[in-house]
Amino acid sequence: MHWPKGLTGLCYGGDYNPEQWPAEVWPTDVELMRRARVNLVTVGVFAWSRLEPQPGRYDFDWLDRVLDLLHDGGIRVALATPTASPPPWFSVRHPDALPVTADGVRLSHGSRDTYCASAPAYRAAAREIAAALAARYRDHPALALWHVHNEYGTTCYCEHVAIAFRAWLRARYGDLDRLDEAWTGSFWSQHYSGWEQIRPPRATQYLGNPSHLLDFRRFLSDELLGAYVEQRDLLRAATPDVPVTTNYVLGGWVPVDHARWSAEVDLVAIDHYPGEVGPGAEEQTAFAADLARSWARHGQRRTGGAGRTAAGPAHRDESGGPAWLLMESAPNLILTPGRMHAKEPGRMTRHSLTHIARGSRGAMFFQWRASRGGAEVFHSALVPHAGPDSRAFREAVSLGALLDRLSEMDAGGVEAPVAVAWDAASWWAMQGTVLPSAQLDYSAEVAAAHRALLRAGRTVDFVTDGDDLFGYALLVLPARYLVSDRYAARIRDYVAAGGHLLVSYLSGVADEHARVRVGGYPGALRDLLGIRVEEFHPLDPATRLPLSDGSTGRLWAETVRLTGATPSVSYTGGLLDGQPALTRHGYGDGVAWYLSTRLDDDAYRDLLAGLAEEAGAEPTCPAAPAGVEAVRRSTADTSWLFLLNHTDSTQTVPVSGVDLLTGARVESVSLPSGGCAVLREG
Amino acid sequence: MHWPKGLTGLCYGGDYNPEQWPAEVWPTDVELMRRARVNLVTVGVFAWSRLEPQPGRYDFDWLDRVLDLLHDGGIRVALATPTASPPPWFSVRHPDALPVTADGVRLSHGSRDTYCASAPAYRAAAREIAAALAARYRDHPALALWHVHNEYGTTCYCEHVAIAFRAWLRARYGDLDRLDEAWTGSFWSQHYSGWEQIRPPRATQYLGNPSHLLDFRRFLSDELLGAYVEQRDLLRAATPDVPVTTNYVLGGWVPVDHARWSAEVDLVAIDHYPGEVGPGAEEQTAFAADLARSWARHGQRRTGGAGRTAAGPAHRDESGGPAWLLMESAPNLILTPGRMHAKEPGRMTRHSLTHIARGSRGAMFFQWRASRGGAEVFHSALVPHAGPDSRAFREAVSLGALLDRLSEMDAGGVEAPVAVAWDAASWWAMQGTVLPSAQLDYSAEVAAAHRALLRAGRTVDFVTDGDDLFGYALLVLPARYLVSDRYAARIRDYVAAGGHLLVSYLSGVADEHARVRVGGYPGALRDLLGIRVEEFHPLDPATRLPLSDGSTGRLWAETVRLTGATPSVSYTGGLLDGQPALTRHGYGDGVAWYLSTRLDDDAYRDLLAGLAEEAGAEPTCPAAPAGVEAVRRSTADTSWLFLLNHTDSTQTVPVSGVDLLTGARVESVSLPSGGCAVLREG
Amino acid sequence: MHWPKGLTGLCYGGDYNPEQWPAEVWPTDVELMRRARVNLVTVGVFAWSRLEPQPGRYDFDWLDRVLDLLHDGGIRVALATPTASPPPWFSVRHPDALPVTADGVRLSHGSRDTYCASAPAYRAAAREIAAALAARYRDHPALALWHVHNEYGTTCYCEHVAIAFRAWLRARYGDLDRLDEAWTGSFWSQHYSGWEQIRPPRATQYLGNPSHLLDFRRFLSDELLGAYVEQRDLLRAATPDVPVTTNYVLGGWVPVDHARWSAEVDLVAIDHYPGEVGPGAEEQTAFAADLARSWARHGQRRTGGAGRTAAGPAHRDESGGPAWLLMESAPNLILTPGRMHAKEPGRMTRHSLTHIARGSRGAMFFQWRASRGGAEVFHSALVPHAGPDSRAFREAVSLGALLDRLSEMDAGGVEAPVAVAWDAASWWAMQGTVLPSAQLDYSAEVAAAHRALLRAGRTVDFVTDGDDLFGYALLVLPARYLVSDRYAARIRDYVAAGGHLLVSYLSGVADEHARVRVGGYPGALRDLLGIRVEEFHPLDPATRLPLSDGSTGRLWAETVRLTGATPSVSYTGGLLDGQPALTRHGYGDGVAWYLSTRLDDDAYRDLLAGLAEEAGAEPTCPAAPAGVEAVRRSTADTSWLFLLNHTDSTQTVPVSGVDLLTGARVESVSLPSGGCAVLREG
Repeated sequence: MHWPKGLTGLCYGGDYNPEQWPAEVWPTDVELMRRARVNLVTVGVFAWSRLEPQPGRYDFDWLDRVLDLLHDGGIRVALATPTASPPPWFSVRHPDALPVTADGVRLSHGSRDTYCASAPAYRAAAREIAAALAARYRDHPALALWHVHNEYGTTCYCEHVAIAFRAWLRARYGDLDRLDEAWTGSFWSQHYSGWEQIRPPRATQYLGNPSHLLDFRRFLSDELLGAYVEQRDLLRAATPDVPVTTNYVLGGWVPVDHARWSAEVDLVAIDHYPGEVGPGAEEQTAFAADLARSWARHGQRRTGGAGRTAAGPAHRDESGGPAWLLMESAPNLILTPGRMHAKEPGRMTRHSLTHIARGSRGAMFFQWRASRGGAEVFHSALVPHAGPDSRAFREAVSLGALLDRLSEMDAGGVEAPVAVAWDAASWWAMQGTVLPSAQLDYSAEVAAAHRALLRAGRTVDFVTDGDDLFGYALLVLPARYLVSDRYAARIRDYVAAGGHLLVSYLSGVADEHARVRVGGYPGALRDLLGIRVEEFHPLDPATRLPLSDGSTGRLWAETVRLTGATPSVSYTGGLLDGQPALTRHGYGDGVAWYLSTRLDDDAYRDLLAGLAEEAGAEPTCPAAPAGVEAVRRSTADTSWLFLLNHTDSTQTVPVSGVDLLTGARVESVSLPSGGCAVLREG
Repeated sequence: MHWPKGLTGLCYGGDYNPEQWPAEVWPTDVELMRRARVNLVTVGVFAWSRLEPQPGRYDFDWLDRVLDLLHDGGIRVALATPTASPPPWFSVRHPDALPVTADGVRLSHGSRDTYCASAPAYRAAAREIAAALAARYRDHPALALWHVHNEYGTTCYCEHVAIAFRAWLRARYGDLDRLDEAWTGSFWSQHYSGWEQIRPPRATQYLGNPSHLLDFRRFLSDELLGAYVEQRDLLRAATPDVPVTTNYVLGGWVPVDHARWSAEVDLVAIDHYPGEVGPGAEEQTAFAADLARSWARHGQRRTGGAGRTAAGPAHRDESGGPAWLLMESAPNLILTPGRMHAKEPGRMTRHSLTHIARGSRGAMFFQWRASRGGAEVFHSALVPHAGPDSRAFREAVSLGALLDRLSEMDAGGVEAPVAVAWDAASWWAMQGTVLPSAQLDYSAEVAAAHRALLRAGRTVDFVTDGDDLFGYALLVLPARYLVSDRYAARIRDYVAAGGHLLVSYLSGVADEHARVRVGGYPGALRDLLGIRVEEFHPLDPATRLPLSDGSTGRLWAETVRLTGATPSVSYTGGLLDGQPALTRHGYGDGVAWYLSTRLDDDAYRDLLAGLAEEAGAEPTCPAAPAGVEAVRRSTADTSWLFLLNHTDSTQTVPVSGVDLLTGARVESVSLPSGGCAVLREG
Repeated sequence: MHWPKGLTGLCYGGDYNPEQWPAEVWPTDVELMRRARVNLVTVGVFAWSRLEPQPGRYDFDWLDRVLDLLHDGGIRVALATPTASPPPWFSVRHPDALPVTADGVRLSHGSRDTYCASAPAYRAAAREIAAALAARYRDHPALALWHVHNEYGTTCYCEHVAIAFRAWLRARYGDLDRLDEAWTGSFWSQHYSGWEQIRPPRATQYLGNPSHLLDFRRFLSDELLGAYVEQRDLLRAATPDVPVTTNYVLGGWVPVDHARWSAEVDLVAIDHYPGEVGPGAEEQTAFAADLARSWARHGQRRTGGAGRTAAGPAHRDESGGPAWLLMESAPNLILTPGRMHAKEPGRMTRHSLTHIARGSRGAMFFQWRASRGGAEVFHSALVPHAGPDSRAFREAVSLGALLDRLSEMDAGGVEAPVAVAWDAASWWAMQGTVLPSAQLDYSAEVAAAHRALLRAGRTVDFVTDGDDLFGYALLVLPARYLVSDRYAARIRDYVAAGGHLLVSYLSGVADEHARVRVGGYPGALRDLLGIRVEEFHPLDPATRLPLSDGSTGRLWAETVRLTGATPSVSYTGGLLDGQPALTRHGYGDGVAWYLSTRLDDDAYRDLLAGLAEEAGAEPTCPAAPAGVEAVRRSTADTSWLFLLNHTDSTQTVPVSGVDLLTGARVESVSLPSGGCAVLREG
């Protein structure tokens, strides 16, 4: 973790695109930013065609003026490299650098992300514009942070990609026999007798090979990371003291393993846009924020706590915890399929605090001023089309004032007694495999586990391969489809040492190459769980299977044979009548549970609450009523309790401390519907 | 308006494709046509590969015989140029003249419309075949009308199109800076440094640029118009006395601005196929007919009432009104998704009279005789597969007799006291923009306003930019997304001079380049309306917002701030409780209303009935009960009242005149369900 | 019909893919096969890249060992030619042999079926690998059957296909005028002036030509058959005594006319995977089995009962009936959209007996051992991922024992008193035509007729063009869209000679070129039926039309005029009130019925039961209660009755004979829910 120098308190601001406006607007912008107490803006994300309007002819004058104006206004800058959108002249000169779809369609410019990250011409041009920016602004006092690119995630299937993919595979497997073994090349006659025969998974006659698809996703993540690292290294060389990051975009289509990337960024930054309109939006927000914090911690650990893998001065996070930053969110918009829902009053603040409670060093938005034209003309902004005389901007001013009152919050970690496993590769493998049910979605399974723990009042960390497990009282593995031998051993060690574990269906089914482990599911976890699953029973969406404890299973059921475990809950009625649905297995000093069906939210919450209690994982704030989220940040000597009322009515929480929003010491907090409080405890 | 010489009374007939049948069938056809009193048929629409079976080798013999037979039978001919479907030999010779999709797929021949209108080889071939037809038939006595092409509307994204698009843009914008400003090139790095960098909006990585998409639609309209004009000019040169037209096809995918085209045709001709099975079919029919009449009037106005823009003798419409013609409709078919609904007995007649009441000079059908083969083998026809011994043909004979009794109706305009704005560019802009709600559809908004007025008993004109507004007591602007400064000024002038105006949501949001006007919606109409909209609230499809007058809003709501207007109806409950939904603003001598949500049909009808009454716009026939449509055609000294009973029961209307269907003078008309009457009034 | 020598009793086994497993697994496989009494396995279906890992370098060693092991274990082999999946090296060498979609996308390898059957390089390579296999294994004692390719059915639109298509058309039509007439080239200007202008039906601007589409499907069937015959002939030359077959795949996308192919295989073999989870699965199974038997009979008839059309020794089916084989089915899987349903206990057996009752010489499965990797990793297998200690494998062992007890069943035909017409060309024509209702599906219409007869207790044959009709008491023509003059004459002869016939809507509408017959539907069957249909009334999916006998019509109705027939059931209410829905027409010594709407299943069953009774077609087992399926196989001197209880409760059937499963003589059979019995009668 490497924090920008001189950026104290919490960051507040967003994407600022002055190039879309006449210069006369810029001073007004700075004035409005000051009114809202904005202290950090991201500049230049899509400005390549303005910065280099013709090949090799740079125009920095306008950006000089913008940065000077911002600096004069006391606002720091996350300066972006504009490489997510090459100018039209570039695409015309280098048509081979435009992306190609799985069908072989060479896409056109006229949007964003119109590049292939494997195209040599693109990589060279990206390095050049990044270097030019670094040379121009390395000493500009407004420069706080380098923001490389935007939302890495573009997929391409062209011939450049084919070449890079083959090189990646060669490095991974060494020889074709090992690749053939990993990919089960004998299925459907897919034995490769030369590396040049391997292609990206282009459109083909029928189903593709899951191992091929999985490795292509892994390759794309590494390939994009390589493009990032190239820019990072030259920026770092120019400005050793300025941290470098890129904003992660979340989504099932994104071929980026964010945990793996986190060792290469100085600061984890995420863009987050929830997709639900009801209370689900708050739960999605908590999910994303817990992921981001966990990636930051993962990255810190992999780099020995230094936040740096390459040469260069090490930067410690002085605050005690692996900080991260919410880099983009929508001030007044929840995007659902076909509809842009306007956020209710106060919701922007509540979402911001959900992130900050979980360690975000601030709240940043897309974007500062709503665009007049272009593809995202109705995207949300702090200054909407209606201008500053608007609810949206008034709330932006209020949020600025609130964050100012929380400025002591620029330190402090979050402690979680329970952990949920997260694995990008399992997600990808499940997407690339024809599973017994098309309704199985890795991300939904993980979100359900997180949501259940959240509703049970527990703060959750996510753990990815290589993370330390021993600190957690309870570990949940939801639908962890891929389990390597090494990972299975780590899980066994965790339980043997006294850990409590819940594994849910579809876990451990396959190895790291997406090859199913034979002999009974859940593969390498059979011994640990004391069971052997003989058969899957994917259920019709409408089916509900009654369970012996009064709850119901849906989506999925299994024929579970006991090989050491004891049944805890059973199926009742039907084909599986009397057979175990939930099992318990003492293992070493710990306990390993297995859940073979999907519970409804309430039953899942109750189950996990019980398991957490048995494991000694306490709620963050036992006094908080249901629907009031409680999260604690703390340093060595201070702790802050965030309370967020997601219910429809006023809630009172009997906790004491100094209310940072009012400055008053309280013995009890009363929160109106949607209201929030932050207490300095003690 | 330029009417075919010698075509008196009402036209009746349809597409006749004798080339699909052995020559023995032709005399039977003529005999059956005479039995049905058919007087005009369209010949040769898709006959290119018969007329020119090999390059440059023409075969006109069969057409000579057909035209002679028709002439001998007293039937006039709308002779088509067959350019909508080049022969296979042409496509094989000129593969570059086949259209290309947005994905870059070069389509194949084997259907119709397999041409790119920008391909030089196609344009040359089209001119040649048109010229050959003109040379052959210029003096044929059956020739009444030139029917150029068929349903212009094909879109192509090939390199020929790219070249033509650039030329069009260069003519429109002059220099790239103006284009850049209009297109907001600064968004996502889309600054063009050379004209050659601009492409048609081919498939790209993510969202396209709305201004780019809009201009491409405008260009396509002009490009297709150019192709039409080329043919028109050479036909006109050969036969100065024969009018030239083309049949418009309606639909959201059609890149043709029909109002703009109407200055270039001698006669507006539309094809109309309603898509609803219930009473909606009749309302769609009225909508299309009102559009056609309004386009004809618009075209007449733009050409100074002469129907001609190019050199050549001017032709006045002697009848006093801008006539138009229903060129295609389905005798016995309503096409719904996945189903060809057979029209109920009498419905063909009712639809025909709906058109004629609104000024159509007749009723023409696709097609005369049902095809045995080809792609549209189950399309409807006047002579169905079952032959003349069929309900369909018997109704065709009846309709012919009925139209004969209405032959005095070959003159007369329609007067409408209210107008609804229509703007193809707003439609296209809304299609090309990611709007806050995907359920917003320009055409549906305009249809809802038209339907409400229709149900309120008012006859409606549509007005497009440049049309005179002062004659209307009430003007409705539904979802008029694009409003230029000039158009805003015209609207202001209209209200200031005493006009009554209703503007609905999403109007005035953007300028003519699809750039949002900042400072508050509805942009340039804020002052006129005395309001400022701060925020949009797109609604979930199931949501109904109660309003203070007992009606409900759906689909959309807004935060409306009053800046001079007074609230008329308010939202009740929820976030917008007490805020205005409908506002009223006195402006000059007139009144400007704003409606910020979508009303249900009944409430919309009541609102518009009230506004019309306040404005002095009377129902066409106050005595007509609900569900009986009344439309009046009139000349200087005669008027005819059409009454169409769309209800399920007999309706009596106390009106007097001569019933043209019976010849009797009546003081009251009794209409069975589905029945129609036409009265010569006075 | 040509049966493998030395294969006695019933075949049992499935696809065995040893190349996916280490050699250590093979002996275990053979041991498990012996435990399950497996006697036939299909080997090598997708092994090309293992057999020829590099161009021209063969590796047969592993296959030698596998065949030796199997032979030592007493298991016979259906040896596959692996031509359904060329190795990657082949596709890289011959990219022109990869298939091309209708959009022109050249597909990639990386799946199966990645070949174009018209590509010369592919055809040559396929011949070479087949010849190499024949040379290697012609004398191997395990070899029982040649299994050519897998599931022929791949469609391609490339230039090789275009060339072959043109040659096929030239052979069919001789000159372009005849093609033009057949294809109605005059519609939409599709007259071809040279053969080279004809293309496969690639993506085009709008609707394609139905006759073009139909002939392309016919061509594809013949083209694929040509590819099969090439392999068959060289295998036959190498091993005159070993029969040759290929496994048919069923489905609407498959461009194969299986009846026509059946004259070219020594043994009809089908793959069958029902798609319904409820009792529909059993009805789909019966449907497929009846089709397979009927194709086998058709093939036998066309080859004079010899099962051979080409030179070579004739093989008679000694058993008396045209045998066929279920080559693939899923042990424990019903694949529904998005879900792999696990078969309930006993269902695998019940499905197997459904096939065997209808003449299948055994029950074969895909596959022996569940794959660890590849695209179908969760497909079902006799040895599942869980291994032999599993319900799936235990049921496989039971089924093997059961089949052993039925070993006398390796002979015997099935007699059916009723026939349903089946016509691949009508299916294709209906798919390629824009019908008046998109819900019309040929296959669904035929299945509904079959299901109704099945529920009425009758055993059903399918008949295709050229089959003898006179043996059937009742013939049903459901939605027989295409009827040639010749076929119409055959049907007339059948009825005139005393046959009973039911024709349902959409029959006889078009001729063999998909040209509609004018003058009234159902075209060439009008006289026979004594009716003339004037108009179609496709119905909304929700509409139910009451009929005079208390049943209801849906989906479709017609205006039927009587020209000799008498009405039997009428429409009541609505537009068609009082008009005939079902008509009866005495013709010669027989009766011809016409049904103009779709009945619900129960009413259709009752109608067909009544017609069958009138025609003298008795139920197979009048004593069987509803829901107990009864099928009889018999030889000259023995008959076996299969009884399958598809109901939810125990059913008793008062029939006597020797129960082959127990060996006991019984006078009555009691079947638990899902239970089966096979009685040797007499």
